[in-house]
Amino acid sequence: MKKIVLGFSGGLDTTYCALYLAEQGYEVHSIIVNTGGFSDEELAGIEAHAKRLGVTTHTTVDAVKSYYDRIIRYLVYGNVLKNNTYPLSVSAERLVQALHIAEHAKAVGAEAVAHGSTGAGNDQVRFDMIFQILVPGLPILTPIRDGQLSREQEIAYLTEKGVQMNFEKAQYSINKGLWGTSVGGRETLHSNGMLPEEAWPTPVTKTGTEALRLHFEKGELTAVNGHPFAHPTEAIKHLQDIAAPYGIGRDIHVGDTIIGIKGRVGFEAAAPLIILKAHHALEKHVLTKWQLNWKDQLALFYGNWLHEGQILDPVMRDIEAFFTASQQQVTGDVFVQLLPYRFQVTGIESAYDLMSARFGKYGEMNTGWTGADVRGFTKIFGNQVSIYHQVKDAADGND
Amino acid sequence: MKKIVLGFSGGLDTTYCALYLAEQGYEVHSIIVNTGGFSDEELAGIEAHAKRLGVTTHTTVDAVKSYYDRIIRYLVYGNVLKNNTYPLSVSAERLVQALHIAEHAKAVGAEAVAHGSTGAGNDQVRFDMIFQILVPGLPILTPIRDGQLSREQEIAYLTEKGVQMNFEKAQYSINKGLWGTSVGGRETLHSNGMLPEEAWPTPVTKTGTEALRLHFEKGELTAVNGHPFAHPTEAIKHLQDIAAPYGIGRDIHVGDTIIGIKGRVGFEAAAPLIILKAHHALEKHVLTKWQLNWKDQLALFYGNWLHEGQILDPVMRDIEAFFTASQQQVTGDVFVQLLPYRFQVTGIESAYDLMSARFGKYGEMNTGWTGADVRGFTKIFGNQVSIYHQVKDAADGND
Amino acid sequence: MKKIVLGFSGGLDTTYCALYLAEQGYEVHSIIVNTGGFSDEELAGIEAHAKRLGVTTHTTVDAVKSYYDRIIRYLVYGNVLKNNTYPLSVSAERLVQALHIAEHAKAVGAEAVAHGSTGAGNDQVRFDMIFQILVPGLPILTPIRDGQLSREQEIAYLTEKGVQMNFEKAQYSINKGLWGTSVGGRETLHSNGMLPEEAWPTPVTKTGTEALRLHFEKGELTAVNGHPFAHPTEAIKHLQDIAAPYGIGRDIHVGDTIIGIKGRVGFEAAAPLIILKAHHALEKHVLTKWQLNWKDQLALFYGNWLHEGQILDPVMRDIEAFFTASQQQVTGDVFVQLLPYRFQVTGIESAYDLMSARFGKYGEMNTGWTGADVRGFTKIFGNQVSIYHQVKDAADGND
Amino acid sequence: MKKIVLGFSGGLDTTYCALYLAEQGYEVHSIIVNTGGFSDEELAGIEAHAKRLGVTTHTTVDAVKSYYDRIIRYLVYGNVLKNNTYPLSVSAERLVQALHIAEHAKAVGAEAVAHGSTGAGNDQVRFDMIFQILVPGLPILTPIRDGQLSREQEIAYLTEKGVQMNFEKAQYSINKGLWGTSVGGRETLHSNGMLPEEAWPTPVTKTGTEALRLHFEKGELTAVNGHPFAHPTEAIKHLQDIAAPYGIGRDIHVGDTIIGIKGRVGFEAAAPLIILKAHHALEKHVLTKWQLNWKDQLALFYGNWLHEGQILDPVMRDIEAFFTASQQQVTGDVFVQLLPYRFQVTGIESAYDLMSARFGKYGEMNTGWTGADVRGFTKIFGNQVSIYHQVKDAADGND
Repeated sequence: MKKIVLGFSGGLDTTYCALYLAEQGYEVHSIIVNTGGFSDEELAGIEAHAKRLGVTTHTTVDAVKSYYDRIIRYLVYGNVLKNNTYPLSVSAERLVQALHIAEHAKAVGAEAVAHGSTGAGNDQVRFDMIFQILVPGLPILTPIRDGQLSREQEIAYLTEKGVQMNFEKAQYSINKGLWGTSVGGRETLHSNGMLPEEAWPTPVTKTGTEALRLHFEKGELTAVNGHPFAHPTEAIKHLQDIAAPYGIGRDIHVGDTIIGIKGRVGFEAAAPLIILKAHHALEKHVLTKWQLNWKDQLALFYGNWLHEGQILDPVMRDIEAFFTASQQQVTGDVFVQLLPYRFQVTGIESAYDLMSARFGKYGEMNTGWTGADVRGFTKIFGNQVSIYHQVKDAADGND
Repeated sequence: MKKIVLGFSGGLDTTYCALYLAEQGYEVHSIIVNTGGFSDEELAGIEAHAKRLGVTTHTTVDAVKSYYDRIIRYLVYGNVLKNNTYPLSVSAERLVQALHIAEHAKAVGAEAVAHGSTGAGNDQVRFDMIFQILVPGLPILTPIRDGQLSREQEIAYLTEKGVQMNFEKAQYSINKGLWGTSVGGRETLHSNGMLPEEAWPTPVTKTGTEALRLHFEKGELTAVNGHPFAHPTEAIKHLQDIAAPYGIGRDIHVGDTIIGIKGRVGFEAAAPLIILKAHHALEKHVLTKWQLNWKDQLALFYGNWLHEGQILDPVMRDIEAFFTASQQQVTGDVFVQLLPYRFQVTGIESAYDLMSARFGKYGEMNTGWTGADVRGFTKIFGNQVSIYHQVKDAADGND
Repeated sequence: MKKIVLGFSGGLDTTYCALYLAEQGYEVHSIIVNTGGFSDEELAGIEAHAKRLGVTTHTTVDAVKSYYDRIIRYLVYGNVLKNNTYPLSVSAERLVQALHIAEHAKAVGAEAVAHGSTGAGNDQVRFDMIFQILVPGLPILTPIRDGQLSREQEIAYLTEKGVQMNFEKAQYSINKGLWGTSVGGRETLHSNGMLPEEAWPTPVTKTGTEALRLHFEKGELTAVNGHPFAHPTEAIKHLQDIAAPYGIGRDIHVGDTIIGIKGRVGFEAAAPLIILKAHHALEKHVLTKWQLNWKDQLALFYGNWLHEGQILDPVMRDIEAFFTASQQQVTGDVFVQLLPYRFQVTGIESAYDLMSARFGKYGEMNTGWTGADVRGFTKIFGNQVSIYHQVKDAADGND
Repeated sequence: MKKIVLGFSGGLDTTYCALYLAEQGYEVHSIIVNTGGFSDEELAGIEAHAKRLGVTTHTTVDAVKSYYDRIIRYLVYGNVLKNNTYPLSVSAERLVQALHIAEHAKAVGAEAVAHGSTGAGNDQVRFDMIFQILVPGLPILTPIRDGQLSREQEIAYLTEKGVQMNFEKAQYSINKGLWGTSVGGRETLHSNGMLPEEAWPTPVTKTGTEALRLHFEKGELTAVNGHPFAHPTEAIKHLQDIAAPYGIGRDIHVGDTIIGIKGRVGFEAAAPLIILKAHHALEKHVLTKWQLNWKDQLALFYGNWLHEGQILDPVMRDIEAFFTASQQQVTGDVFVQLLPYRFQVTGIESAYDLMSARFGKYGEMNTGWTGADVRGFTKIFGNQVSIYHQVKDAADGND
């Protein structure tokens, strides 16, 4: 029997795949890659469900740290917000899931891989592409996409097979992970309309305000309010617990899907947005003008290319090398005020602060240049454009 | 007697200049360029003050429309926020002021120009550079900078000359214009600390919520809630009146000054921020992926170069040509919800919406591609990186 | 009978298509779009061949000017050389051919379009994509690709049908157009090896040297050696006649195909390379530093995106608007020395020369700045990095 | 007595400085930093000259390897040619000289530094800026610039002091270093005109042709014709000896000086140009499309910023990190044909060749995709632009 590795979430689509692939004669090895969205109980439930479906093996991968180390770290370094809005919550975690599934397929010597994507979205591209690159030559089976199956057809099949599970469709489809939760539903199918309060995963229960002190070490969040964490993922979770009940980090993003259409999605990402803004604020104090400029240009591409599934393009390693180099002095504290539905970065403190330094050494610095220096500077700084206009006026006869 | 044109706001520094330059034997022609920050009463007061100081002529230029036509229009096209934060409120208006002063100097046949800048900030560069380009060869006099005068020295001089004016220093220095109001003071001199409530120019008086419909025509705001305006500047002012009492658009920006140090400034810019975000939301629906990408890259440079006073570099005209071309389909309505201290873009409606179109023609579009097409797409889209990894693994002996 | 429009060159592949499509019940309308590679005699021969094959109509489009106006013009404005080597000779002309074929399909009310591409190269993507965009919904037939036909199979089919034509395979495949001639053959299939002398289309018959004076008007070549031309295409052809017999403009390019593999191709493009280098030399004298910089960045993308067939992306119109704006002062003469296998740009003359101006006004310019100005300039220009290092040394304890 | 460190070449300007500074009461410590342009005999002669002038100490720094390690390496990684022409021969070596002089000033505890630049060129900015950054606070003395001295004034002063040296002005000013030799003279002062044969430093003595095999290891030239070198600088010198007598690598560059004017300079750089083109050819075979693209964008900035003296901006370290990461597979041989006045890269051979791989695994690769895959690819690749045009046509009423 041919071994097949199946990315498995326990939802309708992958449940269908597990049974259908076995029926096609495959020895099914299901795998779930947890990027921070599942509790231990949920993972145990999914495993039990997989076993009931008769899979040969089921594997649970705790990929939270791997997710951070391979991707989130660089999204923070780059202050990456797609279209200046979306922290790439789902885009990023699909890639880490695909990477782990491909590695699992290699490890177990699978002769095929499968995923439950339909033909309508971005995820199929991400899974297909990473499998094609990391396990080239292995057939990629996508029963839902290939059969163009409707929800109803899947339910009919599973019911006939005697599968017991909740077939009800949630009003809003939710995808949760360490770097944010996406929310899709009626409103996001159209260009206009905000998600209603009840659609957001985290209810707003905090109504006051509180101040936070976030500590970054070479660009990574390592402590919150003076409390250090063993790994930045712990700090992110802690910050999320504090900030999410304020309703912070909710927005709707519309952007370009990989397949050419525009797509709209709601998301809730309190910790990611606070971290990105706080990190950026710190960078504005400690980096030079052109470091900030090039980080922006590279991050624009990095985020888009990651979104399109191209994490294995070696150019991504090159950009990560740039980002890592740029973070050597991004160390210090950032002060943030949390309020219902919003937050405000109120300042920073860093030994590498190019502004603090000025005032720490105010007297000296002030003697660093004179008005005459600036006059000379401007003379030279504007020299070419001045020549340009004089030449142009003369040539055009306006002189 | 040599004619000199003096940029004149009626404050301490330019009052000093007016008297001092006359004393040096110049025939002083003062000029104030209103970019939206002064009321008619204030302008009349400034004119009276200038006359009392004995200037030969005083000119008031209403530059609000010119400000929009030459600069703001492109800041909107480009969604320009310096360091993703600051709408360049002061940077932009200084340039328009300098342009009008230089044109005035040419028109009256001045033999010198003067401005009241000190040697510590960005404005001196902007004024110097534009004068040097547009009226090359004309001496630029800067009595405050050249004399390295302190506030006290200026007051002593003016008092001695019998000048009657308010010599008290405001707790916060405010600069108001059509594209936002800047606020500097104790807190902005340090890297940490938010401005107190009383420092913000517009008190928060609205506590509820209201919905807005902003209409853009080829990238320009032309109507608010169905009410069309003769010129976008009118729409901006109207929106500002509606939104400012919510406390929207307040933030602190830290960035690179032209002279190499980091500077921090508070600002209040309700209408600019709403317009930029609304405009960007519309663009995300009507422009292609690479239009959005290149607009971002060009806008990053455009904003920085404008900030540094380089508005007369012809590359700015070239970028404006790009921006203008990109706006041909940026027409439609944007829906915005205002709330205390924040706002939310809730959707858009446009005949050019690449997303609406999809659903308007949903049936056809759906048949536009198949799962097999996406599979083929991915095969090719990931082809090079797949080859790359196969070649590398073989060469590195990992195969 | 269903009308089909077929791109037709009269070669083996499109001859096959003409007969095969007719056999499938289509009313075949053949069309050849001449981008400068065919003589009148050749075009007449192709038409006669098409008629003999029994096509319902055959259309010959003289697209040389259209090719220039839509594409070449911008390649010159942008100094576009893919990977700094290849003038995009074939890439560009395929697009113009596809545009004309699609417009013809619209005009005659075709119900399908066809092209003779195989599944191995770039051209299939360019044709498919432009048809899909300009005549969406129309089936695109590609008999050679779909049937995965070999040369032998096509010949067998045509022989059986009694078609009389030269079935011999040329040793080198040549593609000629206004913007260069490509040469593929044994050597270009491998990473190493230069084409032999006999493979190059134009024999080297000139062994001396001659000087040229090229006149550009707003970025376009309008005169050669003082002789003006009615249209730049005439100037290009004239220059090609002069320069090609020197063996100028021969090279081998290796680059990324649209389908992800690397491809290598020889080319001969005397006029294009001379024009691009001459135009660039002129620009270096008349444009500002940042105009040159942004032109380079945009041209890099423009060339690649064009190469990939994306000429109809509106971002291309936006970049063209930038390019056009940048050419306003690119007017003047460029002096070029031709020698066997190479050429040298020896200088320029322009009323807009930012260098000539300096010397034309040498005395004034020299007084334009002083050593003290440069000292002040440097003080400010290096200020931030100086602060950076002082702060870093202090923080790192190296002070 | 105050110690001063003086950059010293033994020419007229620095000879003047040595005497003048001593006369001003300084204890003069002269230093010459050899970047490959001086022979041991020349260096000994310069030292003797310095001693005769009475300097307290004279130091000779062999900076050839340091020059390569700090700068040239990255110019090769980035294929840096300013304005696509000039290998930055002089720009780069001035920076290394300034770095060594500043380090020497620190080491000897100097209380001032001095250089012999005039007020007309780029070098003054490079020296001033690096001194200001590395030895902040130390006065920078520039007697020639500050005194606005003419050649005649300097000669008169030195003659009076009894200095014996050749005061004749060379017809062409030559600056030689490891990365090329610059040539300035009558022709380069104008926008038109080529340097005469006799102006070029290396006479053309080779008239035949020869083939070279250059081996690169992670982007660095390590062997020529199978002969390995201990350090890339040795390989560069060896290649220069072989290629220079062909007259290869001669050109005239016009570009933007740091001080805003356009400047024109001849240069001869056989080895640099061959290495850059060969390295680039290898990269085109082993890097992915987007690696090539981003390297080009970053190199454009890197070269310009280096040219402007900004080598100490930390953004340069970040870009170098990107470049270094990108070179991991840039290993292999490049074949080059040398001929009088020109050279041709004829091919490459590399285990990481993305093209060779295709043919090495031809059979497998060919089955890597089908015509249907490309059809699917194109459908999706052109999807957004197709939607764009359909939406636009409908909205504009052209449908």
